Amino acid sequence: MRKVILGAGISLDGYVARPDGGVDFLYQPKGYSMAAFFTAIDTVVFGRKTFDDAVKRGGGSYKSQGNMPTYVFSTSQPSGEREGVIFTNQQPAAFVQTIREQSGKHIFVMGGGELARSFLQDDAVDELHLGVYPVLLGAGIPFFPSGFPQRDFRLVESKSYEPEGFLELKYSRRRD
Amino acid sequence: MRKVILGAGISLDGYVARPDGGVDFLYQPKGYSMAAFFTAIDTVVFGRKTFDDAVKRGGGSYKSQGNMPTYVFSTSQPSGEREGVIFTNQQPAAFVQTIREQSGKHIFVMGGGELARSFLQDDAVDELHLGVYPVLLGAGIPFFPSGFPQRDFRLVESKSYEPEGFLELKYSRRRD
Repeated sequence: MRKVILGAGISLDGYVARPDGGVDFLYQPKGYSMAAFFTAIDTVVFGRKTFDDAVKRGGGSYKSQGNMPTYVFSTSQPSGEREGVIFTNQQPAAFVQTIREQSGKHIFVMGGGELARSFLQDDAVDELHLGVYPVLLGAGIPFFPSGFPQRDFRLVESKSYEPEGFLELKYSRRRD
Repeated sequence: MRKVILGAGISLDGYVARPDGGVDFLYQPKGYSMAAFFTAIDTVVFGRKTFDDAVKRGGGSYKSQGNMPTYVFSTSQPSGEREGVIFTNQQPAAFVQTIREQSGKHIFVMGGGELARSFLQDDAVDELHLGVYPVLLGAGIPFFPSGFPQRDFRLVESKSYEPEGFLELKYSRRRD
């Protein structure tokens, strides 16, 4: 089955970014690679704000990860393909059902925040992939904003990286 | 040196309790023990709310952990010894300085929330001991409420417990 993977790098106090959107605390730990992860997915999902940030960082246009179809969830923008992505106003559960009717690899939900909450509300997350940076930011944009029902998981992988102990965690949804 | 250890069991989305204070998601994983930890400390610090909860759970009185001196931080209550504890209105930094002038073991700051924030504001935390339960609660009382400057740490120990993958994490303050 095509799994929905929600993932991001977060601070120890659960932020994906500083209050102004800054992500200077993120870095690529030595020996850490997302290459294997990217061969296991073929679809990327953004929230509209994360997409706008990606466009800004790309100097005004969006470059997709290895030509993967990229969906942008937005209730304010009209649906359809443009700017190299597919805008959709579907609910996560309906979207996931549709995409599972097509064959393919896993689906990566990037970003956290409001999109993470809406996927968790719909119970449409199968795995969490977290990179936990050993820092308390003290303020920021939460990866898991409150406002969804309890969801149980099981830790399936845990790995730490020298020298500071960046922690790579993989959790699988436990629906038993 | 006597270290200040801030610790608690938290959900994967960073809560020490549900919105109503409920902690039914906490459990003692098989093979996990705090016995070694409790032999390394000789002083316990609470916030006033956590202390009130402990009194309530104790049926109206507080039973200290192995007769350890227990300090309750409160700005609203008069300072001094009563109800089996020592109330103090000191700032964390001043408190820690005072207690370090006396010989002894480490100091355990229990609870998170407002007391955690005030210790982190004062940069009075040397270690974090977290027990991370593999569950997203979706709402609750945060262990690390926002409102303190960035604090860097280093992961010094990580251990997971079957079957769900409760994660025991120890971080040390990195002041370099």
